[in-house]
Amino acid sequence: MRTLYHHPLCPFSRLVRVVLAEKKLEFDLQIEKFWERRSDFIALNSAGEVPVLVEEGGTALADAAAIAEYLDEVHREPPLLPADPLARAEVRRLVGWFGGKFHAEVTDNLVGEKVFKRLSTAHGEPDSRRIRAGYANIHEHLDYVVWLTERRAWLAGPVFTLADIAAAAQLSCVDYVGDVPWENHPGAKDWYVRVKSRPSFRALLADHLPGVPPPRHYADLDF
Amino acid sequence: MRTLYHHPLCPFSRLVRVVLAEKKLEFDLQIEKFWERRSDFIALNSAGEVPVLVEEGGTALADAAAIAEYLDEVHREPPLLPADPLARAEVRRLVGWFGGKFHAEVTDNLVGEKVFKRLSTAHGEPDSRRIRAGYANIHEHLDYVVWLTERRAWLAGPVFTLADIAAAAQLSCVDYVGDVPWENHPGAKDWYVRVKSRPSFRALLADHLPGVPPPRHYADLDF
Repeated sequence: MRTLYHHPLCPFSRLVRVVLAEKKLEFDLQIEKFWERRSDFIALNSAGEVPVLVEEGGTALADAAAIAEYLDEVHREPPLLPADPLARAEVRRLVGWFGGKFHAEVTDNLVGEKVFKRLSTAHGEPDSRRIRAGYANIHEHLDYVVWLTERRAWLAGPVFTLADIAAAAQLSCVDYVGDVPWENHPGAKDWYVRVKSRPSFRALLADHLPGVPPPRHYADLDF
Repeated sequence: MRTLYHHPLCPFSRLVRVVLAEKKLEFDLQIEKFWERRSDFIALNSAGEVPVLVEEGGTALADAAAIAEYLDEVHREPPLLPADPLARAEVRRLVGWFGGKFHAEVTDNLVGEKVFKRLSTAHGEPDSRRIRAGYANIHEHLDYVVWLTERRAWLAGPVFTLADIAAAAQLSCVDYVGDVPWENHPGAKDWYVRVKSRPSFRALLADHLPGVPPPRHYADLDF
């Protein structure tokens, strides 16, 4: 059986979990406290980061986007990237946007400070300036989601793709800590409800981190 | 003619320049002072970041990895990703490593603080703590390059790939500001000399930013 080393509130792990579920692939989940830098885990991924996917033969894959592209190449149905090169580039641009810009400006400031800093006590107290920056930055990103979905059925074009998964993976972590101002961005909420309603998202909505309960609306499909 | 909006010391722009040169594709280079957030440029890429590639028909592509994959799909020769899915995943893992981890831990601390902060005066004085962090972090990354090249001819396997381009694009920017301790990591230097000797790298070695001259060894192939 393939094994995914992950953390429930790591957005990149969530991306891979949704890809595996969309492809209807079976896998074992193994929570990795990556901040402890366990040597057996470092041997799987020198970067010391989750997610890591270990395939049945024992091959370890790291980097969420690399894992997602690999799974999409090996298990074609349903395709999570379109066939046209320009359309694929648009999906990848958005995967890069949410994994890079959104993560740095929002997720890392909010989930990073509020959850991971507390878990890995070595890194000290949450930084209130970073938390405030996260609160401020998220609006621009939600506006961008609205802008995109006013022009397209899904973020990267007419069909659901890896771009939607990448964006929802980040937003779902921020939503877990109750920090997505959905009421100010109804268009973004409409899109998120559609993603959240997919069977592939179900396991994420059942996540429950001990000591860090999600807000009541987190798993609610009609929030 | 296709146009690449870039900045000479942006490692992501350099990645795309080398890919275009490897594929022997003609292009115009347009320097973009992205920190000025010119509205016509924001219209090409909402992220406001270089590189942006505008194809002959006017289609704009953003995100260096997305552009590189697009070019590799449309212009197959020479391939910059191998055919095997696991081998492709390894290339993408390393493209992610150098564009994410290396950039955040090294390039952004050194080139970001020393060059881009001075160019975009709004962001204030270089932060000496970040510069010291960059000096400290680069050793681990150079050790990793050595570890990889002791096991493989090139970073991701037996052939030259996008992983080598991504790594050399970052390192060449740090080398431009004279901050790569090559003498402590001869194995990494051997690999870099091989990349640097490729015709596709020539234009980068001729870069000269007004007021920020490169060190003497920068363009030297036998440094």
